[in-house]
Amino acid sequence: MILINGESREHIEIADRGFQYGDGLFETIEVRNGQAVFLERHLERLNAGCQRLFIPFQDTELLRFEAGELCRRWALGIHSRQAVLKIIITRGSGGRGYRQPDVIRPTRVLSLHPYPDYPEIYREQGIVARICATRLGLNSTLAGIKHLNRLEQVMARAEWNNSAIQEGLMLDVNDHVIEGTMTNLFYIKNNSLYTAVLAQSGVAGIMRGMIMRISADHGLSIIEHVFTTDELFSADEVFVCNSIIGIWPVKQIDTTHFSVGPITKSIQTQMDRLINNEK
Amino acid sequence: MILINGESREHIEIADRGFQYGDGLFETIEVRNGQAVFLERHLERLNAGCQRLFIPFQDTELLRFEAGELCRRWALGIHSRQAVLKIIITRGSGGRGYRQPDVIRPTRVLSLHPYPDYPEIYREQGIVARICATRLGLNSTLAGIKHLNRLEQVMARAEWNNSAIQEGLMLDVNDHVIEGTMTNLFYIKNNSLYTAVLAQSGVAGIMRGMIMRISADHGLSIIEHVFTTDELFSADEVFVCNSIIGIWPVKQIDTTHFSVGPITKSIQTQMDRLINNEK
Repeated sequence: MILINGESREHIEIADRGFQYGDGLFETIEVRNGQAVFLERHLERLNAGCQRLFIPFQDTELLRFEAGELCRRWALGIHSRQAVLKIIITRGSGGRGYRQPDVIRPTRVLSLHPYPDYPEIYREQGIVARICATRLGLNSTLAGIKHLNRLEQVMARAEWNNSAIQEGLMLDVNDHVIEGTMTNLFYIKNNSLYTAVLAQSGVAGIMRGMIMRISADHGLSIIEHVFTTDELFSADEVFVCNSIIGIWPVKQIDTTHFSVGPITKSIQTQMDRLINNEK
Repeated sequence: MILINGESREHIEIADRGFQYGDGLFETIEVRNGQAVFLERHLERLNAGCQRLFIPFQDTELLRFEAGELCRRWALGIHSRQAVLKIIITRGSGGRGYRQPDVIRPTRVLSLHPYPDYPEIYREQGIVARICATRLGLNSTLAGIKHLNRLEQVMARAEWNNSAIQEGLMLDVNDHVIEGTMTNLFYIKNNSLYTAVLAQSGVAGIMRGMIMRISADHGLSIIEHVFTTDELFSADEVFVCNSIIGIWPVKQIDTTHFSVGPITKSIQTQMDRLINNEK
């Protein structure tokens, strides 16, 4: 199910700047029981991304309506309880080369996809991660937003083909740990929750933001800081998160092992409660 | 005129990884009198880019054939002497998220466009350039190749809307001068030709490579090195180049003025001769 500028279509013109330059943004959203989870936060981030890239798209109401339409159609079919909603906004077509056109008509693409069949054991007993060789570049203009220039993640994910490894962790060019290829990363040390500063690279995930909010509400100290693998390897607990998988404890990074700890479990439980109460 | 995987079409499926992630490469080639200029070198770079990104596309013969077809069709119509041929290769559709599919079927898109109507005066009397605030990130995995992740260039080009300025020059995050938004940059000092090292960022342009070759043949020392704006501003001559514009002298960068010098003129003349003899 795909809506391109409100019409049921599956193709986009090759002149679209999303295809030509990756000139746009996206959101990947869990749909649970016909509802897009944390939709408002995703729409807020998309708006912020459009502002950062000077893409004049602010019609949040239209996106909310079309997302609702797709979710309703999905719920009417014989489908599983969960799905994935992807929203893409591009700068549309036109302009000479990199220069944007004088009149920008953004393209919006909403599509629904099957929910990936990740084993429940990842969530309960943790995953195995590795440190990727591919580094994240530094660019404060693009850091934090979920733009369509994703070759670094594609190259990092292409480093391994071993199904026993579920995620790769990425460092920036200064050897600082930033995030996973498709997740944000947290670690717990002495009852504080740590995650990377995303001022120069990385994506500020919606699930990351919700975890920070939940944890603050429950009295955990939350520290965004710059750290290396040495600090990460000395953590008490480690987990990764995104809007589709939720929270996965990390039980192993390369040869370093971690236990699935009580704080991670507690955050998982609180997040479930929050998502189920949202509806 | 567009050929997508050999068929006359104008649309691509939204699932294509070129659209989803900028997961691909491109070439922009001058067509002069029905011939794609330096085609073999563009195809070589495209091949090298595919190898770097692990995109299993090596059918250079097919690209050569389709490029020839488009150029012939163009020449048959009532068209101007010059045109622009763009070739895009993507990793095709499929895979889960950033992970590439087990079987990769690359997408190829060849399209012909009108030649941009840049005034001849740019080439003869030089252009005005500015230093952009948007920086180039550092990433040795992606440096040098002409990949589809071009948001840095789009953001840099969006910094000015003054038609008296023809190009923006970009520094990397370490304040080193790298290139223009759409061009490579050279400067001449004491009869040596200088250009940036492209190991961490930038695109190794075909025109850049041809200029280095021509200059070596004519006894100029060519020095690829790391430099700042201070060194650039003290140059005797400055010029920018790409496969479409050829060579444009730079007569001004912000408030610093340069004369259009004899070495730049000589390289322009030699390049014209080379292109006209190629056919």
